[in-house]
Amino acid sequence: MYSIGIDLGGTAIKAGIVDEYGKIIVKDKVPTKSERGYEAVLKDMADLCKKLIIKAGIGENEICRIGVGCPGTPDKTNGILIYNNNLGMRNVNIRKELQKYFDLPVYIDNDANVAALAESVCGASKGTYCSVTITLGTGVGSGVVIDNKVYSGFNFAAVELGHHTLVMDGEPCTCGRNGCYEAYASATALISQTKRAALLNKESKIWQACGNNLDNISARTPFEAERMGDKTAKDVCDTYIKYIGEGLVNIINIFQPEVIAIGGGVCNEGERLLHPLKDYIQKYKYTREETPSSTLVIAQMGNDAGVVGAAMLTE
Amino acid sequence: MYSIGIDLGGTAIKAGIVDEYGKIIVKDKVPTKSERGYEAVLKDMADLCKKLIIKAGIGENEICRIGVGCPGTPDKTNGILIYNNNLGMRNVNIRKELQKYFDLPVYIDNDANVAALAESVCGASKGTYCSVTITLGTGVGSGVVIDNKVYSGFNFAAVELGHHTLVMDGEPCTCGRNGCYEAYASATALISQTKRAALLNKESKIWQACGNNLDNISARTPFEAERMGDKTAKDVCDTYIKYIGEGLVNIINIFQPEVIAIGGGVCNEGERLLHPLKDYIQKYKYTREETPSSTLVIAQMGNDAGVVGAAMLTE
Repeated sequence: MYSIGIDLGGTAIKAGIVDEYGKIIVKDKVPTKSERGYEAVLKDMADLCKKLIIKAGIGENEICRIGVGCPGTPDKTNGILIYNNNLGMRNVNIRKELQKYFDLPVYIDNDANVAALAESVCGASKGTYCSVTITLGTGVGSGVVIDNKVYSGFNFAAVELGHHTLVMDGEPCTCGRNGCYEAYASATALISQTKRAALLNKESKIWQACGNNLDNISARTPFEAERMGDKTAKDVCDTYIKYIGEGLVNIINIFQPEVIAIGGGVCNEGERLLHPLKDYIQKYKYTREETPSSTLVIAQMGNDAGVVGAAMLTE
Repeated sequence: MYSIGIDLGGTAIKAGIVDEYGKIIVKDKVPTKSERGYEAVLKDMADLCKKLIIKAGIGENEICRIGVGCPGTPDKTNGILIYNNNLGMRNVNIRKELQKYFDLPVYIDNDANVAALAESVCGASKGTYCSVTITLGTGVGSGVVIDNKVYSGFNFAAVELGHHTLVMDGEPCTCGRNGCYEAYASATALISQTKRAALLNKESKIWQACGNNLDNISARTPFEAERMGDKTAKDVCDTYIKYIGEGLVNIINIFQPEVIAIGGGVCNEGERLLHPLKDYIQKYKYTREETPSSTLVIAQMGNDAGVVGAAMLTE
């Protein structure tokens, strides 16, 4: 049997037919164009699925379910997307809409949870009892999988690890609080930290790495400048890694997951990130020597996480 | 059917026979005297259970299991207490020892987890899908129950909510890090905060409330001085409550539990604590208006939490 996974994003609807091991058999995408209203978007989702079934050369009776992952707040019990800001959707019954086209169970969840599920089924945390996936991007996304199920609390709004305090009354966060993990450990935060350091250090090679235009600074810039031998950039990177590490230690003390997978573009820095993070965790985690420790790894599912994880959703 | 719950503490072994609803039928206690070695302690535990069975007037065949809660690190799979500092126990196979006396399943867990289970079975979070219990005492103890089971991670060392950062590089914590929730929100922390405020404010009524001896300061002292109309004491209480609230918001953003129960002596302050905490949570939690919110309550199980929760342990 196969299942269909749909990754409903602001720009594109991506979908794939996925086998029981999490392997994508066929996949495709269409533009979302959410301004047309939810019914048109949902019809395009259904059409894309029909097309993929034909492309895969399988019968509709070989599909056991459809899963949809998207940003926002889901009502998982009823398959309703309660709120999605980018798509302008409120209280859209995704299950009911898709069941106009398919006689199949339809499940939905938040995109960060779906990505965590993908890692646990066939990615970096495959085969574990409990795992956490953290994505360091514009924000800090997170998902927790326990016993093959996404944990999302009694109201489906968990797990927002990006919104736990790292520094009480610290940097303002998009959530309205101050000092959240996201405000220190996201790629956005790293860019701000790099700009600030450049402004204070006119001799820093950060300026060279960004072509003397601070608006060009990306999460790669401080690491590039560090490789040019720049002390300021090294300090920025070290401090940023300390912020990530501090949150990871919190996550370990809280969840004691078998695996923590970190993803997002900044993870392309590989060992420059992983090595000091592992040292930091080893030094500060609240786990006795006799107790096995969480393993920190880089997430593996990349751009397929949304489709594969959605396909793996169950009640 | 009944089960036996044992609360193995540094001073006393408390045990009770508990019915399936979490009601204690009979209970008793004996001194621990751990200096005699674990075999004598375990034999006393067994003798106490035998005595209770007789006292309850039931047959041993009406008991379906024995549960043991104690501080320290358990290996729940094998019923082994890996480490307990106060009792001087290392790698004690509690299951095997008790099964010398009883042909019954034996389960063990950490005391904070056991307390959370007790609240979820018949206390403040009865009937919920997921709940968190926080005990504000010498440290900050915590337990999380999901779907009627204690969550304790892959290595049984979770959930240490007292050891997540509130203030990075802040107050030193007993765990070796700085800035943990425990270092700000425990009763111990409140006592330090009160002493510090008194030393800086010689006119404060804190001095009167502690009989001019700072060593007499307890977690009640600042609240007593506040009731005398003292501004310094009010500030101490307000700041302490903010620390508790900050951590509670983190816990809600992370777990989205149906109920958070807080316990420990300081909770005797009742609405002085609950009212501002509820306001703080309402203001800062990362949950949209449409989404149901976690409910904050005072824990109900008190001194029976250990015995009742232990009796409710299953694999």
